[in-house]
Amino acid sequence: MTDAKTAAALIIGNELLSGKIQEGNLAFLARMLRSLGIRLRRVVMTLDDIDDIASDVVTLSQSFDWLFTSGGVGPTHDDVTIDAVAKAFQVPVISDPSMETLLRSFYKERCTDAHLRMARIPKGATLETTPEMTWPTVRLHNTWLLPGVPEIFRMKLPVIIDKLGKYPAFVSRAVYTKMDEGDLKPLLDAIVAAYPDIDVGSYPKWFDSSYKTKLTFDGQDQTRVVAARDAFVTLLPAGEPQRLD
Amino acid sequence: MTDAKTAAALIIGNELLSGKIQEGNLAFLARMLRSLGIRLRRVVMTLDDIDDIASDVVTLSQSFDWLFTSGGVGPTHDDVTIDAVAKAFQVPVISDPSMETLLRSFYKERCTDAHLRMARIPKGATLETTPEMTWPTVRLHNTWLLPGVPEIFRMKLPVIIDKLGKYPAFVSRAVYTKMDEGDLKPLLDAIVAAYPDIDVGSYPKWFDSSYKTKLTFDGQDQTRVVAARDAFVTLLPAGEPQRLD
Repeated sequence: MTDAKTAAALIIGNELLSGKIQEGNLAFLARMLRSLGIRLRRVVMTLDDIDDIASDVVTLSQSFDWLFTSGGVGPTHDDVTIDAVAKAFQVPVISDPSMETLLRSFYKERCTDAHLRMARIPKGATLETTPEMTWPTVRLHNTWLLPGVPEIFRMKLPVIIDKLGKYPAFVSRAVYTKMDEGDLKPLLDAIVAAYPDIDVGSYPKWFDSSYKTKLTFDGQDQTRVVAARDAFVTLLPAGEPQRLD
Repeated sequence: MTDAKTAAALIIGNELLSGKIQEGNLAFLARMLRSLGIRLRRVVMTLDDIDDIASDVVTLSQSFDWLFTSGGVGPTHDDVTIDAVAKAFQVPVISDPSMETLLRSFYKERCTDAHLRMARIPKGATLETTPEMTWPTVRLHNTWLLPGVPEIFRMKLPVIIDKLGKYPAFVSRAVYTKMDEGDLKPLLDAIVAAYPDIDVGSYPKWFDSSYKTKLTFDGQDQTRVVAARDAFVTLLPAGEPQRLD
Protein backbone atom coordinates (compact mmCIF):
# COMPACT_ATOMS: atom_id res chain seq x y z
CA MET A 1 0.00 0.00 0.00
CA THR A 2 1.13 3.52 -0.74
CA ASP A 3 0.29 6.83 0.87
CA ALA A 4 -1.48 8.00 -2.30
CA LYS A 5 -4.24 10.57 -2.27
CA THR A 6 -7.59 8.91 -1.54
CA ALA A 7 -11.10 9.20 -2.91
CA ALA A 8 -14.60 7.92 -2.29
CA ALA A 9 -17.68 7.75 -4.52
CA LEU A 10 -21.30 8.17 -3.51
CA ILE A 11 -23.58 6.64 -6.13
CA ILE A 12 -27.14 7.89 -5.74
CA GLY A 13 -30.31 6.41 -7.17
CA ASN A 14 -33.23 4.11 -6.37
CA GLU A 15 -32.91 2.55 -9.84
CA LEU A 16 -29.46 1.12 -9.04
CA LEU A 17 -30.48 -0.48 -5.75
CA SER A 18 -33.56 -2.00 -7.34
CA GLY A 19 -31.41 -3.74 -9.95
CA LYS A 20 -33.41 -2.13 -12.76
CA ILE A 21 -30.33 -0.36 -14.08
CA GLN A 22 -26.80 -1.74 -14.04
CA GLU A 23 -24.49 0.86 -12.52
CA GLY A 24 -22.20 2.13 -15.25
CA ASN A 25 -20.22 5.10 -13.96
CA LEU A 26 -18.07 3.58 -11.26
CA ALA A 27 -15.64 1.66 -13.46
CA PHE A 28 -14.92 4.81 -15.49
CA LEU A 29 -14.32 6.87 -12.36
CA ALA A 30 -12.15 4.14 -10.84
CA ARG A 31 -9.95 3.87 -13.91
CA MET A 32 -9.60 7.64 -14.22
CA LEU A 33 -8.51 7.87 -10.58
CA ARG A 34 -5.94 5.09 -11.01
CA SER A 35 -4.46 6.89 -13.99
CA LEU A 36 -4.14 10.00 -11.82
CA GLY A 37 -2.49 8.05 -8.99
CA ILE A 38 -5.48 8.54 -6.65
CA ARG A 39 -6.74 5.54 -4.68
CA LEU A 40 -10.52 4.96 -4.67
CA ARG A 41 -11.01 3.47 -1.21
CA ARG A 42 -14.75 3.35 -0.70
CA VAL A 43 -17.99 3.41 -2.65
CA VAL A 44 -21.46 3.83 -1.17
CA MET A 45 -24.69 3.37 -3.11
CA THR A 46 -27.73 4.93 -1.55
CA LEU A 47 -31.35 5.81 -2.28
CA ASP A 48 -32.73 9.22 -3.31
CA ASP A 49 -33.08 10.24 0.35
CA ILE A 50 -31.83 13.66 1.36
CA ASP A 51 -30.89 12.75 4.95
CA ASP A 52 -29.10 9.54 3.97
CA ILE A 53 -27.14 11.36 1.26
CA ALA A 54 -26.25 14.28 3.54
CA SER A 55 -24.99 11.90 6.22
CA ASP A 56 -22.84 10.02 3.71
CA VAL A 57 -21.44 13.26 2.28
CA VAL A 58 -20.38 14.37 5.77
CA THR A 59 -18.62 11.08 6.52
CA LEU A 60 -17.02 10.51 3.14
CA SER A 61 -15.88 14.09 2.49
CA GLN A 62 -14.18 14.13 5.90
CA SER A 63 -12.54 10.71 5.52
CA PHE A 64 -11.01 11.03 2.05
CA ASP A 65 -9.16 13.63 0.01
CA TRP A 66 -11.86 13.72 -2.68
CA LEU A 67 -15.50 12.72 -2.90
CA PHE A 68 -17.41 12.22 -6.14
CA THR A 69 -21.19 11.95 -6.16
CA SER A 70 -23.10 10.51 -9.10
CA GLY A 71 -26.80 11.12 -9.70
CA GLY A 72 -29.67 13.19 -8.38
CA VAL A 73 -28.80 16.52 -10.04
CA GLY A 74 -31.77 16.90 -12.41
CA PRO A 75 -34.93 18.96 -11.88
CA THR A 76 -37.41 16.31 -10.67
CA HIS A 77 -38.69 15.35 -7.21
CA ASP A 78 -36.16 12.50 -6.91
CA ASP A 79 -33.17 14.81 -7.54
CA VAL A 80 -32.07 15.78 -4.05
CA THR A 81 -28.27 15.74 -4.25
CA ILE A 82 -27.80 19.54 -4.35
CA ASP A 83 -29.92 19.96 -1.23
CA ALA A 84 -28.21 17.05 0.50
CA VAL A 85 -24.69 18.35 -0.18
CA ALA A 86 -25.72 21.82 1.00
CA LYS A 87 -27.12 20.25 4.16
CA ALA A 88 -23.93 18.23 4.69
CA PHE A 89 -21.76 21.35 4.50
CA GLN A 90 -24.33 23.44 6.40
CA VAL A 91 -24.77 26.06 3.68
CA PRO A 92 -27.97 27.26 1.99
CA VAL A 93 -28.93 26.44 -1.60
CA ILE A 94 -28.81 29.47 -3.89
CA SER A 95 -29.73 29.98 -7.54
CA ASP A 96 -26.56 30.82 -9.41
CA PRO A 97 -27.02 33.75 -11.85
CA SER A 98 -24.51 32.43 -14.42
CA MET A 99 -26.22 29.02 -14.44
CA GLU A 100 -29.61 30.71 -14.87
CA THR A 101 -28.24 32.58 -17.89
CA LEU A 102 -26.88 29.34 -19.36
CA LEU A 103 -30.17 27.51 -18.84
CA ARG A 104 -32.23 30.37 -20.34
CA SER A 105 -30.01 30.48 -23.41
CA PHE A 106 -30.17 26.68 -23.77
CA TYR A 107 -33.94 26.24 -23.34
CA LYS A 108 -34.88 29.66 -24.82
CA GLU A 109 -38.64 30.30 -24.89
CA ARG A 110 -39.29 26.76 -23.55
CA CYS A 111 -37.47 27.52 -20.26
CA THR A 112 -39.68 26.83 -17.23
CA ASP A 113 -39.24 27.19 -13.47
CA ALA A 114 -38.47 23.47 -13.40
CA HIS A 115 -35.59 23.93 -15.86
CA LEU A 116 -34.27 26.79 -13.73
CA ARG A 117 -34.10 24.44 -10.73
CA MET A 118 -30.90 23.18 -12.35
CA ALA A 119 -29.31 26.56 -11.53
CA ARG A 120 -29.53 25.69 -7.82
CA ILE A 121 -26.14 25.09 -6.19
CA PRO A 122 -24.88 24.95 -2.60
CA LYS A 123 -23.67 28.42 -1.56
CA GLY A 124 -19.90 28.57 -1.88
CA ALA A 125 -19.73 25.96 -4.65
CA THR A 126 -17.54 26.64 -7.66
CA LEU A 127 -18.55 25.95 -11.24
CA GLU A 128 -15.69 24.09 -12.91
CA THR A 129 -15.17 24.19 -16.68
CA THR A 130 -12.50 23.58 -19.28
CA PRO A 131 -12.25 25.20 -22.74
CA GLU A 132 -13.64 21.95 -24.21
CA MET A 133 -16.34 21.38 -21.59
CA THR A 134 -18.02 24.70 -20.99
CA TRP A 135 -21.15 23.35 -19.25
CA PRO A 136 -20.18 23.71 -15.57
CA THR A 137 -19.51 20.91 -13.11
CA VAL A 138 -20.40 21.80 -9.51
CA ARG A 139 -17.74 21.36 -6.83
CA LEU A 140 -18.06 22.27 -3.15
CA HIS A 141 -14.74 22.02 -1.27
CA ASN A 142 -13.49 18.47 -1.98
CA THR A 143 -16.86 17.18 -3.24
CA TRP A 144 -17.64 16.96 -6.96
CA LEU A 145 -21.30 16.63 -8.01
CA LEU A 146 -21.59 14.54 -11.15
CA PRO A 147 -24.71 13.50 -13.05
CA GLY A 148 -25.99 9.93 -13.03
CA VAL A 149 -26.67 9.71 -16.79
CA PRO A 150 -23.63 7.72 -17.96
CA GLU A 151 -23.06 9.61 -21.21
CA ILE A 152 -22.93 12.93 -19.33
CA PHE A 153 -20.96 11.50 -16.41
CA ARG A 154 -18.19 10.46 -18.78
CA MET A 155 -18.17 13.86 -20.52
CA LYS A 156 -17.40 15.47 -17.15
CA LEU A 157 -14.32 13.39 -16.35
CA PRO A 158 -11.88 15.56 -18.37
CA VAL A 159 -12.90 18.55 -16.24
CA ILE A 160 -11.93 16.65 -13.10
CA ILE A 161 -8.66 15.41 -14.59
CA ASP A 162 -7.81 19.01 -15.43
CA LYS A 163 -8.33 20.16 -11.81
CA LEU A 164 -7.15 17.28 -9.67
CA GLY A 165 -3.44 17.25 -10.40
CA LYS A 166 -1.50 14.14 -11.27
CA TYR A 167 0.47 11.72 -9.11
CA PRO A 168 2.33 8.62 -10.30
CA ALA A 169 -0.30 6.42 -11.96
CA PHE A 170 -1.03 2.99 -10.52
CA VAL A 171 0.64 0.21 -12.52
CA SER A 172 -0.68 -3.34 -12.68
CA ARG A 173 0.91 -6.59 -13.80
CA ALA A 174 -0.66 -10.05 -13.85
CA VAL A 175 0.25 -13.72 -13.92
CA TYR A 176 -2.18 -16.43 -15.04
CA THR A 177 -1.78 -19.98 -13.68
CA LYS A 178 -3.64 -23.27 -13.68
CA MET A 179 -2.91 -23.68 -9.95
CA ASP A 180 -5.63 -23.26 -7.35
CA GLU A 181 -5.54 -20.72 -4.54
CA GLY A 182 -4.81 -23.34 -1.90
CA ASP A 183 -1.56 -24.29 -3.64
CA LEU A 184 -0.70 -20.67 -4.44
CA LYS A 185 -1.14 -19.35 -0.90
CA PRO A 186 2.37 -20.08 0.47
CA LEU A 187 3.98 -18.58 -2.65
CA LEU A 188 1.81 -15.46 -2.42
CA ASP A 189 2.52 -15.10 1.30
CA ALA A 190 6.25 -15.00 0.50
CA ILE A 191 5.76 -12.19 -2.04
CA VAL A 192 3.40 -10.23 0.22
CA ALA A 193 6.05 -10.38 2.97
CA ALA A 194 8.91 -9.34 0.68
CA TYR A 195 7.02 -6.56 -1.17
CA PRO A 196 4.86 -4.78 1.43
CA ASP A 197 4.53 -1.78 -0.90
CA ILE A 198 2.86 -3.91 -3.58
CA ASP A 199 -0.83 -4.80 -3.51
CA VAL A 200 -1.05 -8.52 -4.40
CA GLY A 201 -4.41 -9.93 -5.51
CA SER A 202 -5.59 -13.47 -6.26
CA TYR A 203 -8.67 -14.08 -8.44
CA PRO A 204 -9.95 -17.59 -9.16
CA LYS A 205 -11.74 -18.08 -12.46
CA TRP A 206 -14.29 -20.83 -12.92
CA PHE A 207 -15.29 -22.30 -16.23
CA ASP A 208 -12.25 -21.01 -18.12
CA SER A 209 -9.95 -23.59 -19.67
CA SER A 210 -6.98 -21.27 -20.24
CA TYR A 211 -6.22 -20.56 -16.55
CA LYS A 212 -7.55 -21.12 -13.04
CA THR A 213 -6.21 -18.24 -10.96
CA LYS A 214 -5.09 -14.74 -11.95
CA LEU A 215 -2.55 -13.06 -9.68
CA THR A 216 -2.20 -9.28 -9.80
CA PHE A 217 0.61 -6.98 -8.62
CA ASP A 218 -0.23 -3.28 -8.23
CA GLY A 219 1.62 -0.20 -7.10
CA GLN A 220 2.81 3.25 -8.10
CA ASP A 221 6.47 2.24 -8.68
CA GLN A 222 6.65 0.28 -11.90
CA THR A 223 10.10 -1.18 -11.10
CA ARG A 224 8.81 -2.62 -7.82
CA VAL A 225 5.60 -3.94 -9.41
CA VAL A 226 7.53 -5.79 -12.09
CA ALA A 227 10.06 -7.05 -9.54
CA ALA A 228 7.27 -8.47 -7.35
CA ARG A 229 5.64 -10.18 -10.30
CA ASP A 230 8.96 -11.64 -11.52
CA ALA A 231 9.90 -12.81 -8.02
CA PHE A 232 6.54 -14.61 -7.84
CA VAL A 233 7.11 -16.27 -11.22
CA THR A 234 10.43 -17.73 -10.00
CA LEU A 235 8.51 -19.54 -7.23
CA LEU A 236 6.14 -21.33 -9.63
CA PRO A 237 6.60 -25.03 -10.49
CA ALA A 238 7.51 -26.28 -13.97
CA GLY A 239 4.82 -25.69 -16.59
CA GLU A 240 3.71 -22.41 -15.02
CA PRO A 241 2.78 -19.63 -15.59
CA GLN A 242 0.26 -19.93 -18.41
CA ARG A 243 0.91 -16.32 -19.38
CA LEU A 244 2.02 -12.90 -18.12
CA ASP A 245 0.54 -9.44 -18.55
CA MET B 1 -42.42 3.80 0.12
CA THR B 2 -43.47 0.64 1.90
CA ASP B 3 -42.45 -0.84 5.21
CA ALA B 4 -40.87 -3.83 3.45
CA LYS B 5 -38.06 -5.83 4.98
CA THR B 6 -34.71 -4.17 4.25
CA ALA B 7 -31.29 -5.37 3.18
CA ALA B 8 -27.78 -4.07 2.60
CA ALA B 9 -24.86 -5.45 0.62
CA LEU B 10 -21.16 -5.19 1.42
CA ILE B 11 -19.09 -5.78 -1.71
CA ILE B 12 -15.49 -6.55 -0.82
CA GLY B 13 -12.43 -6.44 -3.05
CA ASN B 14 -9.53 -4.23 -4.12
CA GLU B 15 -10.08 -5.28 -7.73
CA LEU B 16 -13.51 -3.61 -7.86
CA LEU B 17 -12.35 -0.29 -6.46
CA SER B 18 -9.40 -0.24 -8.83
CA GLY B 19 -11.73 -0.56 -11.82
CA LYS B 20 -9.87 -3.65 -13.01
CA ILE B 21 -12.98 -5.79 -12.70
CA GLN B 22 -16.53 -4.64 -13.35
CA GLU B 23 -18.70 -5.57 -10.36
CA GLY B 24 -21.13 -8.26 -11.47
CA ASN B 25 -22.95 -9.63 -8.42
CA LEU B 26 -24.97 -6.67 -7.23
CA ALA B 27 -27.57 -6.58 -9.99
CA PHE B 28 -28.34 -10.30 -9.44
CA LEU B 29 -28.70 -9.80 -5.70
CA ALA B 30 -30.85 -6.69 -6.18
CA ARG B 31 -33.23 -8.44 -8.57
CA MET B 32 -33.50 -11.49 -6.31
CA LEU B 33 -34.37 -9.28 -3.33
CA ARG B 34 -37.02 -7.39 -5.33
CA SER B 35 -38.65 -10.66 -6.32
CA LEU B 36 -38.75 -11.60 -2.62
CA GLY B 37 -40.27 -8.24 -1.66
CA ILE B 38 -37.14 -7.16 0.26
CA ARG B 39 -35.82 -3.63 -0.28
CA LEU B 40 -32.08 -3.27 -0.87
CA ARG B 41 -31.41 0.10 0.75
CA ARG B 42 -27.64 0.44 0.83
CA VAL B 43 -24.52 -0.95 -0.82
CA VAL B 44 -20.96 -0.38 0.36
CA MET B 45 -17.87 -1.35 -1.61
CA THR B 46 -14.71 -1.60 0.41
CA LEU B 47 -11.10 -2.81 0.20
CA ASP B 48 -9.72 -6.10 1.54
CA ASP B 49 -9.11 -4.54 4.94
CA ILE B 50 -10.20 -6.44 8.03
CA ASP B 51 -10.95 -3.41 10.21
CA ASP B 52 -12.86 -1.56 7.49
CA ILE B 53 -14.96 -4.65 6.74
CA ALA B 54 -15.64 -5.37 10.44
CA SER B 55 -16.77 -1.79 10.99
CA ASP B 56 -19.11 -1.95 7.99
CA VAL B 57 -20.55 -5.30 9.12
CA VAL B 58 -21.37 -3.86 12.55
CA THR B 59 -23.15 -0.83 11.08
CA LEU B 60 -24.98 -2.56 8.24
CA SER B 61 -26.07 -5.67 10.16
CA GLN B 62 -27.56 -3.46 12.87
CA SER B 63 -29.29 -1.06 10.46
CA PHE B 64 -31.01 -3.52 8.13
CA ASP B 65 -32.93 -6.80 8.39
CA TRP B 66 -30.40 -8.67 6.24
CA LEU B 67 -26.80 -8.13 5.21
CA PHE B 68 -25.11 -9.89 2.30
CA THR B 69 -21.34 -9.79 1.89
CA SER B 70 -19.65 -10.65 -1.40
CA GLY B 71 -15.98 -11.57 -1.68
CA GLY B 72 -12.98 -12.37 0.48
CA VAL B 73 -13.88 -15.95 1.43
CA GLY B 74 -11.06 -17.84 -0.30
CA PRO B 75 -7.82 -19.14 1.27
CA THR B 76 -5.32 -16.40 0.31
CA HIS B 77 -3.86 -13.44 2.22
CA ASP B 78 -6.43 -11.01 0.74
CA ASP B 79 -9.39 -13.13 1.96
CA VAL B 80 -10.27 -11.56 5.30
CA THR B 81 -14.07 -11.57 5.35
CA ILE B 82 -14.46 -14.51 7.76
CA ASP B 83 -12.14 -12.87 10.28
CA ALA B 84 -13.80 -9.48 9.79
CA VAL B 85 -17.33 -10.84 10.34
CA ALA B 86 -16.16 -12.74 13.44
CA LYS B 87 -14.59 -9.51 14.72
CA ALA B 88 -17.78 -7.58 14.02
CA PHE B 89 -19.90 -10.02 16.03
CA GLN B 90 -17.16 -10.44 18.68
CA VAL B 91 -16.82 -14.20 18.28
CA PRO B 92 -13.70 -16.27 17.57
CA VAL B 93 -12.99 -18.00 14.27
CA ILE B 94 -13.16 -21.79 14.51
CA SER B 95 -12.45 -24.57 12.03
CA ASP B 96 -15.72 -26.36 11.35
CA PRO B 97 -15.36 -30.18 11.40
CA SER B 98 -18.03 -30.81 8.74
CA MET B 99 -16.41 -28.25 6.40
CA GLU B 100 -13.02 -29.90 6.97
CA THR B 101 -14.53 -33.25 5.98
CA LEU B 102 -16.06 -31.72 2.85
CA LEU B 103 -12.79 -30.06 1.84
CA ARG B 104 -10.75 -33.25 2.43
CA SER B 105 -13.16 -35.29 0.32
CA PHE B 106 -13.10 -32.65 -2.45
CA TYR B 107 -9.32 -32.11 -2.64
CA LYS B 108 -8.40 -35.68 -1.57
CA GLU B 109 -4.61 -36.29 -1.43
CA ARG B 110 -3.98 -32.75 -2.80
CA CYS B 111 -5.57 -31.16 0.31
CA THR B 112 -3.20 -28.71 2.03
CA ASP B 113 -3.39 -26.53 5.13
CA ALA B 114 -4.25 -23.65 2.81
CA HIS B 115 -7.28 -25.51 1.44
CA LEU B 116 -8.39 -26.28 4.99
CA ARG B 117 -8.43 -22.55 5.73
CA MET B 118 -11.75 -22.57 3.88
CA ALA B 119 -13.22 -24.56 6.81
CA ARG B 120 -12.78 -21.49 9.01
CA ILE B 121 -16.08 -19.89 10.09
CA PRO B 122 -17.14 -17.44 12.79
CA LYS B 123 -18.19 -19.36 15.93
CA GLY B 124 -21.97 -19.61 16.01
CA ALA B 125 -22.36 -19.41 12.22
CA THR B 126 -24.73 -21.84 10.52
CA LEU B 127 -23.95 -23.67 7.28
CA GLU B 128 -26.95 -23.28 4.99
CA THR B 129 -27.69 -25.77 2.23
CA THR B 130 -30.54 -26.96 0.03
CA PRO B 131 -30.95 -30.43 -1.51
CA GLU B 132 -29.73 -28.95 -4.83
CA MET B 133 -26.89 -26.86 -3.38
CA THR B 134 -25.08 -29.03 -0.87
CA TRP B 135 -21.90 -26.94 -0.62
CA PRO B 136 -22.63 -24.80 2.43
CA THR B 137 -23.22 -21.06 2.54
CA VAL B 138 -22.09 -19.43 5.79
CA ARG B 139 -24.58 -17.29 7.71
CA LEU B 140 -24.03 -15.61 11.07
CA HIS B 141 -27.23 -14.13 12.52
CA ASN B 142 -28.62 -11.85 9.76
CA THR B 143 -25.37 -11.76 7.77
CA TRP B 144 -24.80 -14.03 4.75
CA LEU B 145 -21.25 -14.55 3.52
CA LEU B 146 -21.20 -15.00 -0.24
CA PRO B 147 -18.22 -15.51 -2.53
CA GLY B 148 -17.02 -12.82 -4.93
CA VAL B 149 -16.59 -15.11 -7.96
CA PRO B 150 -19.74 -14.29 -9.96
CA GLU B 151 -20.46 -17.84 -11.16
CA ILE B 152 -20.39 -19.13 -7.58
CA PHE B 153 -22.22 -16.11 -6.18
CA ARG B 154 -25.16 -16.81 -8.47
CA MET B 155 -25.20 -20.51 -7.57
CA LYS B 156 -25.71 -19.52 -3.92
CA LEU B 157 -28.80 -17.37 -4.48
CA PRO B 158 -31.31 -20.26 -4.46
CA VAL B 159 -30.10 -21.18 -0.95
CA ILE B 160 -30.90 -17.67 0.24
CA ILE B 161 -34.29 -17.61 -1.49
CA ASP B 162 -35.11 -20.86 0.28
CA LYS B 163 -34.33 -19.42 3.73
CA LEU B 164 -35.46 -15.80 3.54
CA GLY B 165 -39.20 -16.16 3.20
CA LYS B 166 -41.25 -14.32 0.67
CA TYR B 167 -43.17 -11.04 0.82
CA PRO B 168 -45.16 -9.41 -1.99
CA ALA B 169 -42.67 -8.87 -4.84
CA PHE B 170 -41.95 -5.34 -6.03
CA VAL B 171 -43.76 -4.49 -9.24
CA SER B 172 -42.55 -1.92 -11.75
CA ARG B 173 -44.27 -0.14 -14.62
CA ALA B 174 -42.79 2.42 -17.01
CA VAL B 175 -43.77 5.19 -19.39
CA TYR B 176 -41.48 6.48 -22.16
CA THR B 177 -41.85 10.05 -23.39
CA LYS B 178 -40.08 12.52 -25.66
CA MET B 179 -40.59 15.27 -23.06
CA ASP B 180 -37.71 16.56 -20.96
CA GLU B 181 -37.58 16.45 -17.19
CA GLY B 182 -38.19 20.17 -16.83
CA ASP B 183 -41.54 19.85 -18.58
CA LEU B 184 -42.40 16.61 -16.79
CA LYS B 185 -41.71 17.88 -13.28
CA PRO B 186 -45.14 19.42 -12.49
CA LEU B 187 -46.91 16.29 -13.79
CA LEU B 188 -44.66 14.02 -11.72
CA ASP B 189 -45.14 16.17 -8.62
CA ALA B 190 -48.91 15.66 -8.93
CA ILE B 191 -48.52 11.87 -9.06
CA VAL B 192 -45.98 11.78 -6.20
CA ALA B 193 -48.45 13.76 -4.05
CA ALA B 194 -51.43 11.54 -4.95
CA TYR B 195 -49.58 8.20 -4.65
CA PRO B 196 -47.24 8.46 -1.64
CA ASP B 197 -46.97 4.66 -1.49
CA ILE B 198 -45.53 4.50 -5.02
CA ASP B 199 -41.87 5.14 -5.77
CA VAL B 200 -41.77 7.38 -8.87
CA GLY B 201 -38.52 7.65 -10.83
CA SER B 202 -37.45 9.82 -13.78
CA TYR B 203 -34.53 8.78 -16.01
CA PRO B 204 -33.38 10.94 -18.91
CA LYS B 205 -31.79 9.13 -21.83
CA TRP B 206 -29.37 10.88 -24.12
CA PHE B 207 -28.59 9.83 -27.66
CA ASP B 208 -31.71 7.69 -28.07
CA SER B 209 -34.15 8.71 -30.78
CA SER B 210 -37.11 6.65 -29.51
CA TYR B 211 -37.61 8.53 -26.23
CA LYS B 212 -36.09 11.20 -24.01
CA THR B 213 -37.22 10.38 -20.47
CA LYS B 214 -38.33 7.11 -18.88
CA LEU B 215 -40.71 7.36 -15.91
CA THR B 216 -40.99 4.43 -13.53
CA PHE B 217 -43.66 3.52 -10.97
CA ASP B 218 -42.72 0.93 -8.32
CA GLY B 219 -44.43 -0.64 -5.34
CA GLN B 220 -45.61 -3.87 -3.78
CA ASP B 221 -49.31 -3.39 -4.65
CA GLN B 222 -49.74 -3.99 -8.36
CA THR B 223 -53.14 -2.28 -8.50
CA ARG B 224 -51.70 0.92 -7.04
CA VAL B 225 -48.63 0.80 -9.29
CA VAL B 226 -50.75 0.51 -12.42
CA ALA B 227 -53.16 3.19 -11.15
CA ALA B 228 -50.28 5.63 -10.58
CA ARG B 229 -48.86 4.98 -14.02
CA ASP B 230 -52.26 5.37 -15.70
CA ALA B 231 -53.01 8.56 -13.75
CA PHE B 232 -49.71 9.95 -14.98
CA VAL B 233 -50.50 9.05 -18.59
CA THR B 234 -53.75 11.02 -18.43
CA LEU B 235 -51.72 14.16 -17.61
CA LEU B 236 -49.55 13.90 -20.73
CA PRO B 237 -50.14 16.17 -23.76
CA ALA B 238 -51.28 14.91 -27.15
CA GLY B 239 -48.75 12.67 -28.93
CA GLU B 240 -47.47 11.17 -25.68
CA PRO B 241 -46.52 8.65 -24.34
CA GLN B 242 -44.18 7.01 -26.84
CA ARG B 243 -44.81 3.65 -25.19
CA LEU B 244 -45.77 1.89 -21.95
CA ASP B 245 -44.25 -1.06 -20.11
